[in-house]
Amino acid sequence: MSKELVFGHQKPDTDTIAAAMAYSYYQNQLGYETEAVALGEPNDETKYALKAFDLVAPRIITTAANEVAKVMLVDHNEPQQSVSDIDKVQVTHVIDHHRINGFNTAAPLYMNVRPYGCVSTVLYEMFMDKHIDIPANLAGMMLSAIISDTLLLKSPTTTDHDKEAVYALAKLAGVDYEEYGLEMLKAGTNLAAKSDNEIVDGDAKTFEMGDLTLRIGQVNTVDLNDVFARQADLEKAMQTLMDANGYDTFVLIVTNILNSDSDLLVLGKDTDKVAQAFGKELDANHRINLPGVVSRKKQVVPPLTEVLG
Amino acid sequence: MSKELVFGHQKPDTDTIAAAMAYSYYQNQLGYETEAVALGEPNDETKYALKAFDLVAPRIITTAANEVAKVMLVDHNEPQQSVSDIDKVQVTHVIDHHRINGFNTAAPLYMNVRPYGCVSTVLYEMFMDKHIDIPANLAGMMLSAIISDTLLLKSPTTTDHDKEAVYALAKLAGVDYEEYGLEMLKAGTNLAAKSDNEIVDGDAKTFEMGDLTLRIGQVNTVDLNDVFARQADLEKAMQTLMDANGYDTFVLIVTNILNSDSDLLVLGKDTDKVAQAFGKELDANHRINLPGVVSRKKQVVPPLTEVLG
Repeated sequence: MSKELVFGHQKPDTDTIAAAMAYSYYQNQLGYETEAVALGEPNDETKYALKAFDLVAPRIITTAANEVAKVMLVDHNEPQQSVSDIDKVQVTHVIDHHRINGFNTAAPLYMNVRPYGCVSTVLYEMFMDKHIDIPANLAGMMLSAIISDTLLLKSPTTTDHDKEAVYALAKLAGVDYEEYGLEMLKAGTNLAAKSDNEIVDGDAKTFEMGDLTLRIGQVNTVDLNDVFARQADLEKAMQTLMDANGYDTFVLIVTNILNSDSDLLVLGKDTDKVAQAFGKELDANHRINLPGVVSRKKQVVPPLTEVLG
Repeated sequence: MSKELVFGHQKPDTDTIAAAMAYSYYQNQLGYETEAVALGEPNDETKYALKAFDLVAPRIITTAANEVAKVMLVDHNEPQQSVSDIDKVQVTHVIDHHRINGFNTAAPLYMNVRPYGCVSTVLYEMFMDKHIDIPANLAGMMLSAIISDTLLLKSPTTTDHDKEAVYALAKLAGVDYEEYGLEMLKAGTNLAAKSDNEIVDGDAKTFEMGDLTLRIGQVNTVDLNDVFARQADLEKAMQTLMDANGYDTFVLIVTNILNSDSDLLVLGKDTDKVAQAFGKELDANHRINLPGVVSRKKQVVPPLTEVLG
């Protein structure tokens, strides 16, 4: 059996890095030869988690076929989110928690996909099913992944499976998950080091709703003022992106991870309808406050689709 | 939680029927409300298995959206092999052992795919992982499925997982798997009741190789003479299908399930190359004998692709 590479999606987040490390470890325990790699640098939050548990970031690759014939994917299945030459290697395993989109194979494979808040929760259950012990530092990394994806179990994407995994992994890692988790999330919100463009567009996605092309970005913070002190510059960056890419409307979700509230900053066409989707009116600063809203996928896109779609 | 339907592919075989029954039972044990249904009548082999274990064939449906909003798929994922209105329902679960092809979802789902010889082996392991007891008659049906898909563990698609599942399920069902399995396979080879067209085309698939369009059918028997006594009529049926559908070459794999050998009957263009793919020459009856060959997917298509492709 020749070596296989294990990796997550491009622009890696904490879950994608942790899942590659955890699944590679799991496969090696079962007797396979695998190596966890990444498609980019870890972000600030992931670096904090790696340091906290004394782990080294996976090696970064840009292509796979020059090294191996077979690969294992974690935390993604869509080819455009994967390694650039994904069409030149055989995918033998997929562990994921996303929808299936554009993923086709020539041969049968091993695929474990579950609708949980975090793929590290799927992996935690796989370790349990096969009675494979999780080392303390790897447990800490998987814990970090679930905290990151579920915003400390507060996102509506959180399932009971995620909660059980967090409690068990925190025990294995020997940390208080709430205390550690908040510090880790804070480490990921170092906005001072980010450009205006990174803040408004770093995590943004495009949606077509009715006649409108919407761009919806999201940024986490521990203090909304850290973001809105720069509002004039952020608006300039949003306007430039709208002009350059033909977005009709730009929505920036600014999420306070301490109290799980968000402010939306809305520019462009039909901003009144955007506000109306949440039963609100825009204030003089082009903002609306949405208590309890943290998930773009579950709490922002659906009401917008309802009104605009 | 509203009811969901569980079903396998069109033109159901023993594995697809058994898997729908087993997975529906499994989900109901976990507290879901599901019903196993089928997209067509059971074949002779499946009828034999159902009767042997005193089970009733699942209800047949032609559409799903008129009954339910959500469905669970077993033994297939490709939309064109599924229920006619698959695009109008949400797929929440997939249990399969085939390649992934054209399967896309709008939302995350539960998906367990493993490269085993039979999907009932995947299900057997799921029952074990969750410590759910398998009733004797359901175990018999799952055993029948694995025997059918692996031709009594002799097909090269057979994995160690399939073998372990067969030994365990035979114990649960209280049968000698070799004795029972042979009787069941024989029941599926009642060729006297089948038309020439059913024999040559009932299980046939089309393959593009190089400039050629090949049609490759397969039929199981306990005596090659049962098939070749009708060779002139079968050749007429093959020629008619070639003319009507533009197939360049027609290969009929006639498999003796007693000794795991096959004869290929080859008509059309480049028949010498087809024989050459197996290091043989066609005999005067347009046939070649291939000892130990039982799998179209693993033993017939690859060498043909090598020479023609």
